[in-house]
Amino acid sequence: MLDDIRPVTWHDGAVRIIDQTALPGQLAYLDLTSVDALIAAIQRLAVRGAPALGVAGAYGVALALLRGDRAAARINEGFDTVLAAAHAVLNEDLTANRTLSTLGADWLLTRLDRRPLRLLTHCNAGALATAGWGTALGVVRELHARGLVEVVYVDETRPLLQGSRLTAWELARLGIPHLIQADGAASSTIVSGHVDAAIVGADRIAANGDTANKIGTLGVALACAHAEIPFLVAAPTSTVDLATPSGAAIHVELRAESEVLGHASPKDSRAHNPAFDVTPATLISALTTERGVAELNHGQLPGTLWT
Amino acid sequence: MLDDIRPVTWHDGAVRIIDQTALPGQLAYLDLTSVDALIAAIQRLAVRGAPALGVAGAYGVALALLRGDRAAARINEGFDTVLAAAHAVLNEDLTANRTLSTLGADWLLTRLDRRPLRLLTHCNAGALATAGWGTALGVVRELHARGLVEVVYVDETRPLLQGSRLTAWELARLGIPHLIQADGAASSTIVSGHVDAAIVGADRIAANGDTANKIGTLGVALACAHAEIPFLVAAPTSTVDLATPSGAAIHVELRAESEVLGHASPKDSRAHNPAFDVTPATLISALTTERGVAELNHGQLPGTLWT
Repeated sequence: MLDDIRPVTWHDGAVRIIDQTALPGQLAYLDLTSVDALIAAIQRLAVRGAPALGVAGAYGVALALLRGDRAAARINEGFDTVLAAAHAVLNEDLTANRTLSTLGADWLLTRLDRRPLRLLTHCNAGALATAGWGTALGVVRELHARGLVEVVYVDETRPLLQGSRLTAWELARLGIPHLIQADGAASSTIVSGHVDAAIVGADRIAANGDTANKIGTLGVALACAHAEIPFLVAAPTSTVDLATPSGAAIHVELRAESEVLGHASPKDSRAHNPAFDVTPATLISALTTERGVAELNHGQLPGTLWT
Repeated sequence: MLDDIRPVTWHDGAVRIIDQTALPGQLAYLDLTSVDALIAAIQRLAVRGAPALGVAGAYGVALALLRGDRAAARINEGFDTVLAAAHAVLNEDLTANRTLSTLGADWLLTRLDRRPLRLLTHCNAGALATAGWGTALGVVRELHARGLVEVVYVDETRPLLQGSRLTAWELARLGIPHLIQADGAASSTIVSGHVDAAIVGADRIAANGDTANKIGTLGVALACAHAEIPFLVAAPTSTVDLATPSGAAIHVELRAESEVLGHASPKDSRAHNPAFDVTPATLISALTTERGVAELNHGQLPGTLWT
């Protein structure tokens, strides 16, 4: 089945992942049989995306038990329970993505008159970043299924190019028209009237709605606010962290300078390489989740979706 | 002399240029002896930047006359006049850059309390983009000469990486501390309080102050407005085009899709590759020129600097 992308599954006693570093050149699967191998795969971003990492973590616990002392009956019992729980994490994410995509598409269509829609996304929040189907790209797919997508502008997403490598690959497989652009082009594409709405995923959402996502997301949000078009965050409620009051409490990880420097820069130059940025809730038109849509810039808090 | 970067000069009957496509790996000079060779060098961005292109154009006219019928005395007479005029274009640009850099630095210091300054720039508006010294980087150099620069954040400037290749190379030669970052990081670096002011150059400035510059400039301006820090454009008055009433009249050139796609994207994906964007005057704190500083977002028009 064409759209059956499953970046993390359990296969015959191993965590099977799509090696996302090999895309789009090659669709290669890796069977990880140790926790160390799983950790290494996560560090080099062979598996990535908050929901997909949740699934990988759950299967990782099962893997740890499986590789433990199988002679002890209680551990075997624990393994079955943990594996079942990991399967549930995967299936719940898949179901959540389908629901939040429908709700997000419905919400967007109440806000926009133009048909078909011209959309913009940043990084990869597709099937590859989740248990399957996708979040931001899930909304795009839902709109495409309704015949309502004209084009998707895909930010290439430097330094690791998740946009041009992964999002473009997913859209190409699905037959959804798309244009890859340099990250610096996003503001102009939006402000000059080429885009009806931007849709992105989320790594973590604070209790007040401030949202951490791939570096460059904030710039997209600022341009949408200037152009007065919807900026939609699509994520399951498992991404909401009520223990984090606001974006100010989110520590921004700095990744290796070598990701930015490459061969093009002078040998003594240094780099600043933040992995993600924080978009304030005031710049987010709405958050679509499997439990409903919260209009964050109108003061609706994520936590009100399930309390 | 360390800072004696001259991207375009006249040398023994040829237009001598620094081949900017070879930087930072190699500082190579090319002697162009025909107009066709000069045009080809401009098309592949071996020579680039509005002021440097002005100098190249002036020497190009001299080159055309030199390669014409030298037997005719009047053409030889014309050549001497044209060459002298081209030398004047070069020298006037150099002088203008020094003056606008001093004025821009003075203006910034009246607006900012913090010392030393943390600056951000996009693309390359240094000596390489001009007859020499630079415009946006000229202001940075002037501030550095006064001991007032802590660090310069350098946007790498995809797709052609003029920031990581050229600006970083110039700053490294000058011993000015700098950090290269992905273009998507600029908004976050600014909004999170790591930057005191952004300084960029200009390709063309409309009569109302709207400014065309390398793609990605608009995003920097939006972030500066959100963070309420100065966004300074540095350019000689020759960049102001009073015949263009506003940015709406500026046609945005689309460059080759291959510049964006590279090897990382699916083979059937297409790209959107605008060469520059237009920042509205309302987002520009000030324009510094050799004739003075105009606070564009306060309604001061560029033309009032010399009328």
